[in-house]
Amino acid sequence: MRVVVPFAPERPKTRLAPVLGEAERAAFARAMLGDVLSVLSTLDRERAVSVDPLVLSTAPIDCEVSVAVDDRPLTSAVNDRLPASGGDDPVAVVMADLALATPEALARLFGPDADVVVAPGRGGGTNALVVRDPAFRVDYHGASVRDHRRIARDADLSLAHVDSFRLAADVDEPADLVEVLLHGEGEAPAWLAEAGVSVVAADGRVDVERSSG
Amino acid sequence: MRVVVPFAPERPKTRLAPVLGEAERAAFARAMLGDVLSVLSTLDRERAVSVDPLVLSTAPIDCEVSVAVDDRPLTSAVNDRLPASGGDDPVAVVMADLALATPEALARLFGPDADVVVAPGRGGGTNALVVRDPAFRVDYHGASVRDHRRIARDADLSLAHVDSFRLAADVDEPADLVEVLLHGEGEAPAWLAEAGVSVVAADGRVDVERSSG
Repeated sequence: MRVVVPFAPERPKTRLAPVLGEAERAAFARAMLGDVLSVLSTLDRERAVSVDPLVLSTAPIDCEVSVAVDDRPLTSAVNDRLPASGGDDPVAVVMADLALATPEALARLFGPDADVVVAPGRGGGTNALVVRDPAFRVDYHGASVRDHRRIARDADLSLAHVDSFRLAADVDEPADLVEVLLHGEGEAPAWLAEAGVSVVAADGRVDVERSSG
Repeated sequence: MRVVVPFAPERPKTRLAPVLGEAERAAFARAMLGDVLSVLSTLDRERAVSVDPLVLSTAPIDCEVSVAVDDRPLTSAVNDRLPASGGDDPVAVVMADLALATPEALARLFGPDADVVVAPGRGGGTNALVVRDPAFRVDYHGASVRDHRRIARDADLSLAHVDSFRLAADVDEPADLVEVLLHGEGEAPAWLAEAGVSVVAADGRVDVERSSG
């Protein structure tokens, strides 16, 4: 399956600024992209799901897989890569900041035989989806999971949801780093640990702190 | 399976105070408990998983299922209900604020044949678990999912994780109400809608607002 991975290498993850500097945020975003691509590669190698990855980047990057540069807004750039007519192959869209993704979690995305398969993100987002019908188009603005349900319903398409914590946990804010450190299995948690970011529990809340060393 | 549902009817959900008044928080917490019990009942009725629910409450409440009152801290109260010796039946612990739980999600919790099955919550919590071995004890303080992994490992127990967004989404803060409104299927989302709480998208973020009507 063609798997499109949108990525914005310029000024990424600005909401992580309380914990990481600008160059660090760029490096960490790249580590998360590497983890997502690594999971896709594992899936292709071990699980008999044929995966053809394409990084859809807002600017040129060096990458071990194919890159298409498209600086338009996310919705337009993704829609141009979705199936355009009935005979086209299905296309998956998987966000580059799913640092908790595993081969098992993504295999569940590719499994259901529905026209559209959605993995909701926290806060109303759509972190991953599979599109098998050219009548479907994405709209990533706002509470996109609600819009995607409506778009599928209006086009009379079958829709399946994937109930996955790992696919719901995109990484935007410092609190999200807790999830990466507790549940991540790739380069991203190792990168954070190397940078001195760790999990702390205080007053019944769990957060991250950064050592000054 | 014996399913223990811890519930604190006094001063519940204080972090929802920016959106709901005190009596409203109590009513909403009760609606979420009702949804969890309803899901367990459906599971028992339709799915051939025998469920024997027990609400473990810090104070007396009227309830359609059995209630045990225990005002000790959560960890102590739960540990006293776990299997005590090798011949005891397994026990599940499911939090009362899992407003997104469905029969499908909880069936995945009961499925794995491991000594301990954990459904991680956001922020390092343990939102649901199944204990089949008397060597395991809970510790809900801090990043409990990390502690529960350690406790299982130290006792040489097999441990399985359930990767579920629905079971990861406990409801503590106003932002969590977005998930209830977008994904809930029971009384809790209906209660919120009736109270005038709705999802709004602004500046690329999704939040809740409350109508003043």
